[in-house]
Amino acid sequence: MHIDILTLFPEMFHGVFNSSILKKAEENNAVQYNPINFRDYTDNKHQKVDDYPYGGGAGMVLAPQPLFDAVDHLKEQRKNTAPRVILMCPQGEPYTQEKAEELSEEDHLIFICGHYEGYDERIRTHLVTDEISIGDYVLTGGELGAMVVIDSVVRLLPGVLGNNESAIKDSFSTGLLEHPHYTRPREFRGLSVPDVVLSGNHQKIEEWRQKESLKRTYERRPDLLEKMELTDEQKRWLQVWKNEK
Amino acid sequence: MHIDILTLFPEMFHGVFNSSILKKAEENNAVQYNPINFRDYTDNKHQKVDDYPYGGGAGMVLAPQPLFDAVDHLKEQRKNTAPRVILMCPQGEPYTQEKAEELSEEDHLIFICGHYEGYDERIRTHLVTDEISIGDYVLTGGELGAMVVIDSVVRLLPGVLGNNESAIKDSFSTGLLEHPHYTRPREFRGLSVPDVVLSGNHQKIEEWRQKESLKRTYERRPDLLEKMELTDEQKRWLQVWKNEK
Repeated sequence: MHIDILTLFPEMFHGVFNSSILKKAEENNAVQYNPINFRDYTDNKHQKVDDYPYGGGAGMVLAPQPLFDAVDHLKEQRKNTAPRVILMCPQGEPYTQEKAEELSEEDHLIFICGHYEGYDERIRTHLVTDEISIGDYVLTGGELGAMVVIDSVVRLLPGVLGNNESAIKDSFSTGLLEHPHYTRPREFRGLSVPDVVLSGNHQKIEEWRQKESLKRTYERRPDLLEKMELTDEQKRWLQVWKNEK
Repeated sequence: MHIDILTLFPEMFHGVFNSSILKKAEENNAVQYNPINFRDYTDNKHQKVDDYPYGGGAGMVLAPQPLFDAVDHLKEQRKNTAPRVILMCPQGEPYTQEKAEELSEEDHLIFICGHYEGYDERIRTHLVTDEISIGDYVLTGGELGAMVVIDSVVRLLPGVLGNNESAIKDSFSTGLLEHPHYTRPREFRGLSVPDVVLSGNHQKIEEWRQKESLKRTYERRPDLLEKMELTDEQKRWLQVWKNEK
């Protein structure tokens, strides 16, 4: 997979792409990262990438020319006429694990990251294929959002995760939040591990884990339960907790 | 504000803390970043930070000792007995702009970032004050989430944003998504700027912007409208668009 990132701050990506799984994925040729300063694509002598908004108002707006030309050049360079061109912005669709899975099927992603500026609307309507928001909070630029999307996508590429990492049950694969985990020592600063976890009775441990997983989801993220099909036993447990309130 | 980050990958933060607003904020002494490898706090000779889960199962679990001792040391070092200790994890409360504002009032934040491992439950129940998730997608570790939270918090600290940046109307401050922006040229690759934006009639431009902002929110994020008190005019517009469907 080729991942090109159009940004005014390419150096922001260095630490993230050179650590842990993202680094290993590049070393194993599963992916190639290419942060590009789109200022290099400006056709004006002052290398200006933005301009005042038509109609007035505060703030600057990223002009279409450098970004359109940069995307054209990348399409040609990668011999790919239809890459996914992803705009990171608060107006985008809320990012989900399903979207990560969809993007992991592609072989060429181009991210566009603005930095505390608006985008000329023609970039949205005629250049990008996807607009993504990682959440309802205000960030200084699209770079951190792009890193989040890239991390979640690259870890899904074949061969990227080793056994250790992929063996972890991901929180969103069952639809429920994870149950509590415990490791040694049995007692730490007066805090003990629950007896059931130490019992050696695997059926009891599994039942306890499933129940705790359901309880944590009920207490913290009841919205996730609304989307699920629950078993009769799960419904019974939920009724018990509701009555306890 | 002191921001300490407990992680096994402190080098991941380098590029992000040395760019743009986050860098300027540290240069202006509004904040100090301190990524720390918590492996340095292990009390065993092999510097192991994790162990097998009690009760069996795949994956490893971060042990309590290194993290408890690291937090103790940071409290002492900063002479702060009650810092916010924030665990980045999929089981945490969904992150919001309100939470960013709350955290920006503190003077000492400690982030705990695991990396494709579970946390011993005693860390959750007896060490941390907050558990945060930046969204319902699977990431390799808590580091990117911590960067997202730090960016959103630091830009709210007094004096961090200059006039240029703070003048931008943030997408979540009005409750609606932003209206379209346009800048020069008037025509680019055959794509024109709408006449109204070029009209010079400021009242008409403002009305158009408010309407487009509402329309975009209706089309892309109707969930945001449910939380808002709408004016009679906004309700009329929504009715028109509903009838058009």
